[in-house]
Amino acid sequence: MLTGKRQSAPVQYRPSAELVPQVLGGSTSAVARMITRAEAEYDEAAPALSDLYRHGGRAHIVGITGVPGGGKSTLISALIRDYVAAGHKVAVVAVDPSSPYSGGAILGDRIRMGQAADPSRAFIRSMATRGHLGGLSRATFQAVDVLDAAGYSPILIETVGVGQDEVEIVTAAHTVVVLSPPGLGDDIQAIKAGVMEIADIHAISKADRPEAAATAAAIKAMIALGSDAPRSGWQTQVLTLSATTDKGIAALVEAIDAHRVHLQASGELAPREEAIARTRVLSNINHLIRRRFDDGTQAMSAQLQAVAGRASDPLTAAMRLLGPENTEHRT
Amino acid sequence: MLTGKRQSAPVQYRPSAELVPQVLGGSTSAVARMITRAEAEYDEAAPALSDLYRHGGRAHIVGITGVPGGGKSTLISALIRDYVAAGHKVAVVAVDPSSPYSGGAILGDRIRMGQAADPSRAFIRSMATRGHLGGLSRATFQAVDVLDAAGYSPILIETVGVGQDEVEIVTAAHTVVVLSPPGLGDDIQAIKAGVMEIADIHAISKADRPEAAATAAAIKAMIALGSDAPRSGWQTQVLTLSATTDKGIAALVEAIDAHRVHLQASGELAPREEAIARTRVLSNINHLIRRRFDDGTQAMSAQLQAVAGRASDPLTAAMRLLGPENTEHRT
Repeated sequence: MLTGKRQSAPVQYRPSAELVPQVLGGSTSAVARMITRAEAEYDEAAPALSDLYRHGGRAHIVGITGVPGGGKSTLISALIRDYVAAGHKVAVVAVDPSSPYSGGAILGDRIRMGQAADPSRAFIRSMATRGHLGGLSRATFQAVDVLDAAGYSPILIETVGVGQDEVEIVTAAHTVVVLSPPGLGDDIQAIKAGVMEIADIHAISKADRPEAAATAAAIKAMIALGSDAPRSGWQTQVLTLSATTDKGIAALVEAIDAHRVHLQASGELAPREEAIARTRVLSNINHLIRRRFDDGTQAMSAQLQAVAGRASDPLTAAMRLLGPENTEHRT
Repeated sequence: MLTGKRQSAPVQYRPSAELVPQVLGGSTSAVARMITRAEAEYDEAAPALSDLYRHGGRAHIVGITGVPGGGKSTLISALIRDYVAAGHKVAVVAVDPSSPYSGGAILGDRIRMGQAADPSRAFIRSMATRGHLGGLSRATFQAVDVLDAAGYSPILIETVGVGQDEVEIVTAAHTVVVLSPPGLGDDIQAIKAGVMEIADIHAISKADRPEAAATAAAIKAMIALGSDAPRSGWQTQVLTLSATTDKGIAALVEAIDAHRVHLQASGELAPREEAIARTRVLSNINHLIRRRFDDGTQAMSAQLQAVAGRASDPLTAAMRLLGPENTEHRT
């Protein structure tokens, strides 16, 4: 991280408030540093992150999810190429422990970025998934805020389609793309259980395989049976694509854009943004409560010991700790 | 669900309080109904579930996690057979959308249960993974409480090793077994990112494959490098096993039991149970706060609109909603 010339000089910590105008001006190094601070949960960075949030709101946020091995990274690589070629400043936030990104770079030669390697045009960031519970989604949202404030749009969030945190993350997007590999085996089962109903667009990878068309038909049938077919006037799209040959990528870019236009034209954007705000406020409430726990007041530790000793139970302890305004509900 | 004789009679809803003595007496139908009510979040069932929690605390809870396709269901099937043969009342709570259980029964002939099919000796329950965020872990913990109160021990919790909710669930166990398939490819990467450090016992499946020994050696090396080697005097175990031929299953049962004995003898049990209590109280606090949100007070909806409109930000809104005792921390 140190420059070649001044290896012995200490790394200077620039106050986060000073980074704000640099982020707004599009400095990629300021963007990277702010995201690192969000991830590390530096107290010092919190006001700056709040500030950046208030400067944002222009980006179109696209959640892309699907089981590992379904072709997400190849797809995202193709999308980056398309968006950069069309003149967009695109960003990717990857929340997938199996994703091949590391430290802002894409690893492995299976992903060829071409001209997209310039981070001012295509910024790629992999979020650490080792963090404490709940911290992951909060930091991911903040990374999106920073990129939004820096003028990136669209911002793609990549998650694996398993696990409720991942579902939570991907629903905090304007447009949700669920990528499924062809075949209706265990993988599709896994997707069905969690994320089938949140898709605005279904993409089936490996269109060259003979089962791809059957998978598309099965997903279409599932949508027709499901409750979400007439949701807000948007007809869930089902596309087949082959990222290796770029087949269908243009159609996917078009479908994402059509959904964006639909959200604005239908008046659906405002309720969706309120739902995203709700998720985000909740995630911060959880964060604040965990902090209270970590501080370990005497009252808390007495409650925990009572629960551990079976003299109390988790719900009763939670109600006592939260205070009277929450006790109107038994559960 | 209705009996053959009285198909037109309405299903009678028995108050949950009446089910409590039946659960304590070991009635499998009462156990099944209580778990269903926990999953459905019936307000009426909450006092009974609190009551059952206070009656529990005897069961040894074993979390078993690993990527899909690693052989978890085959392993669990073999464990059930062993525990039943040794005279235990064993229970399995499966939190894995790809697991082959459904409605209390194991699907598919790849799992042969033998005499374990009697639910009073081996109770198997698959948790719905479609629930709202956070609800899954809470309901899973409550299912464990019900089974604990009914006298089941050990209780095995099966999760996929991806996703933070799954990690949270599995850490609410006394003993954590991480099952890895042989080979150090993407799957192991995925496990490493989340659950490597929480294992008390590592099991490597498919011991008949030539890579199994190398995988075991790699995991041992990783443990030696990691910080958890000297944790609380327990030396993390690494076993290879082949569930199809029962190779290593007896050793795994022994390792699980050795860990249980270690927890008691070392004094490590109390802090672990307090950590579990902490997780569970937090999960109930989250639940209560979500309920408050769902009720939609005017103050909340004003805050949400301010956040959605970028006049406020998620952290500021969370601090305002939680009240003054939480505002001492900026993040």
